[in-house]
Formats: sequence, C-alpha cells, structure tokens
Amino acid sequence: MYIILIYDIAQDNGGAKVSRNIFKICKKYLTHVQKSVFEGEITPALLVKLRMELDKYIRDEEDSVIVFSSRQERWLEKEFWGVADEKTSNFF
Amino acid sequence: MYIILIYDIAQDNGGAKVSRNIFKICKKYLTHVQKSVFEGEITPALLVKLRMELDKYIRDEEDSVIVFSSRQERWLEKEFWGVADEKTSNFF
Repeated sequence: MYIILIYDIAQDNGGAKVSRNIFKICKKYLTHVQKSVFEGEITPALLVKLRMELDKYIRDEEDSVIVFSSRQERWLEKEFWGVADEKTSNFF
Repeated sequence: MYIILIYDIAQDNGGAKVSRNIFKICKKYLTHVQKSVFEGEITPALLVKLRMELDKYIRDEEDSVIVFSSRQERWLEKEFWGVADEKTSNFF
C-alpha cells in the first residue's frame, strides 16, 4: 500500500526530542517530502512495525499522527505549490 | 476529486500572518484535520480557485503546499495515531 504520514507533535516540554525521534523512525521506512510529511510504499507488516516504534514516543493526549493509505500509488497524484521537493515530486 | 492539502509556511518575517490567511482560505473549501492539514471533496474548478487565492500569500521561495489528490475518497483510508480528530476520522 502507498501511505502519506503526517505528524503534529506538541512543542511543549520534551516535544522537540519527540519530533527528532519520530523523524528518524519515519525516515527508515518512508520518503520525507515536507517538514512533518512522509510518503512511500510500505507493506502492512512494516506499517505495524513503524507504528510500534512510533508508539514509544507519541504522547497520546498531545501528539497526532495521521496516516492516509491508498492501495495503489497510481491512485494518488501529488502537486507542489511554492517550494517543491524535487526528490519525490510528480507534477500532473 | 478528493484532496489532502498540507502546507508548511516559513515562520520568519510575516510567516504568522501568511499562515493565518492560508488557514482561513483553506477552511472555506476543505475540512481541517490537523495543524496544517486539510482534506475534502473538491471540483477541479474550485481547486483552481483555491489555488489562485492561496497564490496571493504563498512566498514561492519559502512556503510549500502539497496537494495529494485521489479521484475517489473511497480509494483513501485514514487512521489516527495519538490524538484523533473526531470531525473527520474514519478508522478502518
């Protein structure tokens, strides 16, 4: 499946450290496209593994991660307005 | 089409004001789901109109907006880890 993962980490006490850990973990599995946005192809099993790693840092009452998933990358098109990220952009 | 719009506004001089304007404009067309993330059904014509309004504020060298689009909402599933946004969440 193809996923878009977006996280929003509360920047109060300890937030900066949580953000760094979340970023490092996501980078192992996905491609970074914008500040707190990652995307990429991933298997259901690896998605479970990714979630278990993130769950060690996500503070349930404060931090939010959204995962949009599509069964096929080709069902999703991406467009950049303003600064584009060359690594993964595919203008339609 | 169904879109996910994510913006990243440089928070240097004038960034806060740009963010407020981008937020207000997006709210007219889409549903707010996380700090700088909106989603919703939109026609191609309205997407053009949304872009024209945002373009007045986006600073091309600093600010970034990504639009992921899928022809059908049902091709996209969404999951929240941590704080969920009740308004639009649909766990699978």
